[in-house]
Amino acid sequence: MYYYKEGLINEIKPDKPDPAAAKVLQETLGGQFGEMRTMMQYFFQSSNFRGKEKQFRDLLRGVFLEEIAHVELVQSTINALLDESGGAGVGDQGVDRAPLDEAIKHANPHHYIMGAQSSLPVDAGGNPWNGSWVYNHGNLIADMLNNVVLESTGVLQKTRIYEMSSNATFRETLGFLIVRDNAHQNVFAKALETLGVDWAKLFPVPNYDINKYPECRKFVEMGFHNTQFNFRLDPTRIGEILQGKSPSRNGGEFTVTQPPNEFPVPDLPDMPNEHSPGLVDMFH
Amino acid sequence: MYYYKEGLINEIKPDKPDPAAAKVLQETLGGQFGEMRTMMQYFFQSSNFRGKEKQFRDLLRGVFLEEIAHVELVQSTINALLDESGGAGVGDQGVDRAPLDEAIKHANPHHYIMGAQSSLPVDAGGNPWNGSWVYNHGNLIADMLNNVVLESTGVLQKTRIYEMSSNATFRETLGFLIVRDNAHQNVFAKALETLGVDWAKLFPVPNYDINKYPECRKFVEMGFHNTQFNFRLDPTRIGEILQGKSPSRNGGEFTVTQPPNEFPVPDLPDMPNEHSPGLVDMFH
Amino acid sequence: MYYYKEGLINEIKPDKPDPAAAKVLQETLGGQFGEMRTMMQYFFQSSNFRGKEKQFRDLLRGVFLEEIAHVELVQSTINALLDESGGAGVGDQGVDRAPLDEAIKHANPHHYIMGAQSSLPVDAGGNPWNGSWVYNHGNLIADMLNNVVLESTGVLQKTRIYEMSSNATFRETLGFLIVRDNAHQNVFAKALETLGVDWAKLFPVPNYDINKYPECRKFVEMGFHNTQFNFRLDPTRIGEILQGKSPSRNGGEFTVTQPPNEFPVPDLPDMPNEHSPGLVDMFH
Amino acid sequence: MYYYKEGLINEIKPDKPDPAAAKVLQETLGGQFGEMRTMMQYFFQSSNFRGKEKQFRDLLRGVFLEEIAHVELVQSTINALLDESGGAGVGDQGVDRAPLDEAIKHANPHHYIMGAQSSLPVDAGGNPWNGSWVYNHGNLIADMLNNVVLESTGVLQKTRIYEMSSNATFRETLGFLIVRDNAHQNVFAKALETLGVDWAKLFPVPNYDINKYPECRKFVEMGFHNTQFNFRLDPTRIGEILQGKSPSRNGGEFTVTQPPNEFPVPDLPDMPNEHSPGLVDMFH
Amino acid sequence: MYYYKEGLINEIKPDKPDPAAAKVLQETLGGQFGEMRTMMQYFFQSSNFRGKEKQFRDLLRGVFLEEIAHVELVQSTINALLDESGGAGVGDQGVDRAPLDEAIKHANPHHYIMGAQSSLPVDAGGNPWNGSWVYNHGNLIADMLNNVVLESTGVLQKTRIYEMSSNATFRETLGFLIVRDNAHQNVFAKALETLGVDWAKLFPVPNYDINKYPECRKFVEMGFHNTQFNFRLDPTRIGEILQGKSPSRNGGEFTVTQPPNEFPVPDLPDMPNEHSPGLVDMFH
Amino acid sequence: MYYYKEGLINEIKPDKPDPAAAKVLQETLGGQFGEMRTMMQYFFQSSNFRGKEKQFRDLLRGVFLEEIAHVELVQSTINALLDESGGAGVGDQGVDRAPLDEAIKHANPHHYIMGAQSSLPVDAGGNPWNGSWVYNHGNLIADMLNNVVLESTGVLQKTRIYEMSSNATFRETLGFLIVRDNAHQNVFAKALETLGVDWAKLFPVPNYDINKYPECRKFVEMGFHNTQFNFRLDPTRIGEILQGKSPSRNGGEFTVTQPPNEFPVPDLPDMPNEHSPGLVDMFH
Repeated sequence: MYYYKEGLINEIKPDKPDPAAAKVLQETLGGQFGEMRTMMQYFFQSSNFRGKEKQFRDLLRGVFLEEIAHVELVQSTINALLDESGGAGVGDQGVDRAPLDEAIKHANPHHYIMGAQSSLPVDAGGNPWNGSWVYNHGNLIADMLNNVVLESTGVLQKTRIYEMSSNATFRETLGFLIVRDNAHQNVFAKALETLGVDWAKLFPVPNYDINKYPECRKFVEMGFHNTQFNFRLDPTRIGEILQGKSPSRNGGEFTVTQPPNEFPVPDLPDMPNEHSPGLVDMFH
Repeated sequence: MYYYKEGLINEIKPDKPDPAAAKVLQETLGGQFGEMRTMMQYFFQSSNFRGKEKQFRDLLRGVFLEEIAHVELVQSTINALLDESGGAGVGDQGVDRAPLDEAIKHANPHHYIMGAQSSLPVDAGGNPWNGSWVYNHGNLIADMLNNVVLESTGVLQKTRIYEMSSNATFRETLGFLIVRDNAHQNVFAKALETLGVDWAKLFPVPNYDINKYPECRKFVEMGFHNTQFNFRLDPTRIGEILQGKSPSRNGGEFTVTQPPNEFPVPDLPDMPNEHSPGLVDMFH
Repeated sequence: MYYYKEGLINEIKPDKPDPAAAKVLQETLGGQFGEMRTMMQYFFQSSNFRGKEKQFRDLLRGVFLEEIAHVELVQSTINALLDESGGAGVGDQGVDRAPLDEAIKHANPHHYIMGAQSSLPVDAGGNPWNGSWVYNHGNLIADMLNNVVLESTGVLQKTRIYEMSSNATFRETLGFLIVRDNAHQNVFAKALETLGVDWAKLFPVPNYDINKYPECRKFVEMGFHNTQFNFRLDPTRIGEILQGKSPSRNGGEFTVTQPPNEFPVPDLPDMPNEHSPGLVDMFH
Repeated sequence: MYYYKEGLINEIKPDKPDPAAAKVLQETLGGQFGEMRTMMQYFFQSSNFRGKEKQFRDLLRGVFLEEIAHVELVQSTINALLDESGGAGVGDQGVDRAPLDEAIKHANPHHYIMGAQSSLPVDAGGNPWNGSWVYNHGNLIADMLNNVVLESTGVLQKTRIYEMSSNATFRETLGFLIVRDNAHQNVFAKALETLGVDWAKLFPVPNYDINKYPECRKFVEMGFHNTQFNFRLDPTRIGEILQGKSPSRNGGEFTVTQPPNEFPVPDLPDMPNEHSPGLVDMFH
Repeated sequence: MYYYKEGLINEIKPDKPDPAAAKVLQETLGGQFGEMRTMMQYFFQSSNFRGKEKQFRDLLRGVFLEEIAHVELVQSTINALLDESGGAGVGDQGVDRAPLDEAIKHANPHHYIMGAQSSLPVDAGGNPWNGSWVYNHGNLIADMLNNVVLESTGVLQKTRIYEMSSNATFRETLGFLIVRDNAHQNVFAKALETLGVDWAKLFPVPNYDINKYPECRKFVEMGFHNTQFNFRLDPTRIGEILQGKSPSRNGGEFTVTQPPNEFPVPDLPDMPNEHSPGLVDMFH
Repeated sequence: MYYYKEGLINEIKPDKPDPAAAKVLQETLGGQFGEMRTMMQYFFQSSNFRGKEKQFRDLLRGVFLEEIAHVELVQSTINALLDESGGAGVGDQGVDRAPLDEAIKHANPHHYIMGAQSSLPVDAGGNPWNGSWVYNHGNLIADMLNNVVLESTGVLQKTRIYEMSSNATFRETLGFLIVRDNAHQNVFAKALETLGVDWAKLFPVPNYDINKYPECRKFVEMGFHNTQFNFRLDPTRIGEILQGKSPSRNGGEFTVTQPPNEFPVPDLPDMPNEHSPGLVDMFH
């Protein structure tokens, strides 16, 4: 069963609202290669696991647990990019200008219609998350090769999305997740190494210099690219696989460690213009 | 962040395979009113919460945490209904009969093509889970009214699905979830009562006699229909709302308690016919 | 604006329940070439009409009005095919047999889960009706050619679905609609004739002998294949187009007439097993 | 059966074209909580009605009939916002500028590709209307609670969309529909009151001051927020439910009245640039 | 079986990048009436052909073969419109400006996230290509009438998209395809003439003066609007149908000829910013 | 450009109709890991190719060309499984039995409604083919790793589908495609070996003994599992990659050869019951 302690896995760095950045960051939340996909894919792969080699089930479930925290991190980042992005209420402006007409120009209009300026389970094009994306054929090699492609594509997309805004809130979250996708790419590559593959210098995919992303450096220095966090309250066999040399061409030793300390969840204020939460008169 | 202790929230009662039952039970997993929907809806509602009345956020997140365990329970139940449901391997039968030709007759063929006789993120008609189902408009009253409808529909569907097979594995899980949907219906109805509504004798919806479902009785006797389990490792304000009289016409007092003890996760054997997990030669 | 007088456009002929027939008849309701498509396509074409030749707008709207009644007729037919198709309630049968296990074998399970044994806005494969099917490009020739294809395909599908059950409820409705699709095929072919086309012996498509369908004969004798019903409460210019020789190779004169007399809407009984309507205790 | 008298249920107030407003207003037409959804949901609920309490069927059908007119009103409003929004034809401008390049910048490009600058059955994000949105489980309480959520969400979205443009065509239609959604919210809340619920001050949701929307005032003064229009040509039992005190915290008495007088349907001119209707050479 | 000789069916005329044009041109590639639809529709119609009149199968397959080349032409055109449309790499600009923030403003963001600034199987609204669009009911008249509508709609959409940018790369491809859609409209209209229809002056739809599109003229002069290219390496009976007078109101004689000479496929450079193809370090 | 010579890439072995087998074989045609996906994925990857290492583009296009022939082979196989599977026409049977009521029991009803007993672009669950499945991120390593997963999953699914019927038509096609997927898995694995990877004994996935499938043996004896057919009419650089040792644990040398000789395309008879092709009266 699943337990929770309030707190985010990385910080929400303050910056200005940026609804265009919120729109494209949705790919990382609800896109075909986003965090909801990784979370649900590893959930199904671990629940449906067959056979006696339970160290692989522990590995799949271990990454699944971290992905739930990733989803919450991206939700919170999108919320921070949207918060305060609209104008004031009815009557606060002249007849020629509605408070949201500028906000929606390069935004996903559903952020203001279906959400109260908050995250949605959709991608950068507004397409809803779809269960057919979950890959779980039950053949462990096929499943883990797909996981390698999924994590590689996740980091490839994040390096492309990173170029779409200089907003610090946006880039801090992307920087953290780039490093963690890198780690998870290594996790599944490492697991396949235990089956005999020698990846040579194939990973990481894409073939990028992580030092070009200043937000990534502190995490690399902490070794987060070669670490798997352990969210289990009971024993796990994950360390049987995740030990020794990293499969990355950049080398390093793999470790399993405790998760980072929690970062505070930002408070989102009332938003009367969106009638959210809409309880004002009732409690006062 | 999210932590895990291995174990299911209710038992997987053994019975024979029943792929037709597995097919319809998918509605409870990946359908529009199934457990993946409740899990993701409350996840988004709690992460996107606005305003100062944090007891409601704790309530939304509290139910979310239990729903993750519900998803795992239904995945495991479907797996048990599918396991051993096919025939043997190639060459084990005569030319006129393939090992899976009978199995797929009333089954979802994807259970044997995309899954290795295991659960999928789809509904009873094979339609994949869809993010557009998540309702989170950020207006707390609208969100909680939708949650009441969602839980009412969940239990209504489960009472209908219950009639589709007498299989004990199938009915034990449905019985447990009927009681828990009943509890969650009460949770959101109770929260709306704190805003002034008097539901009279409206709930539970549907208007059914829970004693007709023998699998439900033991849970009702334990008070599970008026209890919310607490999966938080840190303090929660959920008890400010969930106390006093239940909104159900059947009465009772609401409580917040520890989760039940874990039930064992059944082992799923190798399935060579599905090439799952497919590691045989590698580890031996 | 839209007005209503209770009654169906053709009778619901009584016969036994037939859930497999209900499943395939859904194509005629919610399929890509079904009655919901024709209804919504002509609705958009008439509301979005451009230009001065308003007799064409009246023609499009005239067929739209009839299609609403077609949708209601197919809904009612599916309801009649599903009603009483399941078993009795919990406890009425032994442990080896659930009341719905037989019913769902060749049925759409959603007829028993999402509907209370009643019609759904989906096709024969369970795919939901989709707005992208509506064709309305605003070029009148393209729109009307598409309407000819739509009506031709509608009747082609209905002659194929007709072969899937001998049930009288099922075939009476299909027989009526085959004749009306034939009429609407003629309507749009006739409108294109006013633009100069000579169809020779192309229509009707498919090239079938309507006398092979005994349910069609009475309608052909009443001339329903060359008639457009008029549901307007105010004047219409539809008769400027729908007069003179039919474009069908079978000949005849086109007329605009009053709709047929209303047929009674069958009463659907309470269905306690589906908790529908679920008001028993409240009114008694 | 369904009859028609030409005319809109509210006026199309003239203003300039505004394709960005047309894009977001599509949510109100083809969105998950738009007028096509309410129309089709109440259509299925009334056609599939079970049981003897026919006053509820009359109520469901009564609101359905009005929703057809709402769909036509929003179609016509979108058409007015799009008409004349593009440039002139080929060759009318220099090589550096195409007549539609500016128009599509903040528009839904399908308004100019699939429609001849006219409405489409899609939402504000361009997603087509989908039959899976229709909620009709046949349990009357569940169905009517869902209807309350649907109408509450409809009005919540409309108050948010209202902020996206000051265009008078756009706001007049939204103002009218906000009041009618309010009335329909009251209709279903009232129906649930006859089953014993006391809503206290819960409604309307959202908790807004309708006087902030100047377009709403004239309709409130006419009592349109506590009235149901009657589009039946034969007797209806709807008045058995819709009488006495409104369930709204703003009070008032419920009435059933005749529909408002028809407003003229605006003429849409030929649009040669879109080849619509494209008949020029044929009739002249 | 299918053979290939490298080369495009028309030239890629050089001009500046134009991501907004690339976005709308996607309709012509992956839209409901785009080249992927025509390609797959004629593929299924020819593979599933029934009956002895094989000259029609040869005709369907003949057009299918050309459509593969059309798909490749539009892919290459979109690539040319996107290439070099983004900024430089990380660190090349100040903190206030990310290299892609301007590029994505009026673009499909997936062109930069899922593609390396290259074409996608989606429409102008970002909706993925969908198999349900393929029309192949096996009734030859219905299938060919649908093909006429498909080609008419294709050319209608292209004349509308043409107005959305003056870019020469964009307009050259559209001009070529307008003429070819015109030819294919004539192909299917001609085939229906062999069944007796007299189209009078109905075609081409839309009713446009092709001389208004300067890019079309050279192709009309070469007779491409009344020609079918033959891509068969073995004999074909297509000429039995495609001979004699064109069904177009503009007249002319139909011919079957060899395809045009190949045009060079443009080279797309490495794009380090998109990590494409990402092999730099490995081969150097 | 694309050229055609009539003939199938493998034979259609005659056996009885088997509509249940046709239904599941649709996965291999229109499923997420079926032949339409491989065809379109390699088409986009080759058209959108970036960079100077054109031997990889030739490799991607080379496999694409073969996949078109695979699509045609599966279409023809499904047609053979459906042909003659229904009963006779109207009036040929008693009132209690319609000619198609038995045929549709375990079939996809759309095979008889939308197709004239012929193939459709859908999967085994009836879901239409979807463009979002195409993976083409433009990073060559990510693209080719995805291709390895795609081919591995294709063969894994085919070995599972193979168990669903003993029909010889069905198994001959699956046997041929299992060997070819094996070859294409080797193709992309080999290409990744040129970048340094050592796959050890990972491939083929799944880890199966191909000799268990009697239909595969003749193709293995011809070396088809380590061969790429060349469909180019002009020079190709594919041989720079596809030479030397196969990456399979079963060893062998890779070759590039001419395609096999064409097999005859079976004739499909008229089917009057489906009104296909429906030309009878016109040509006689």
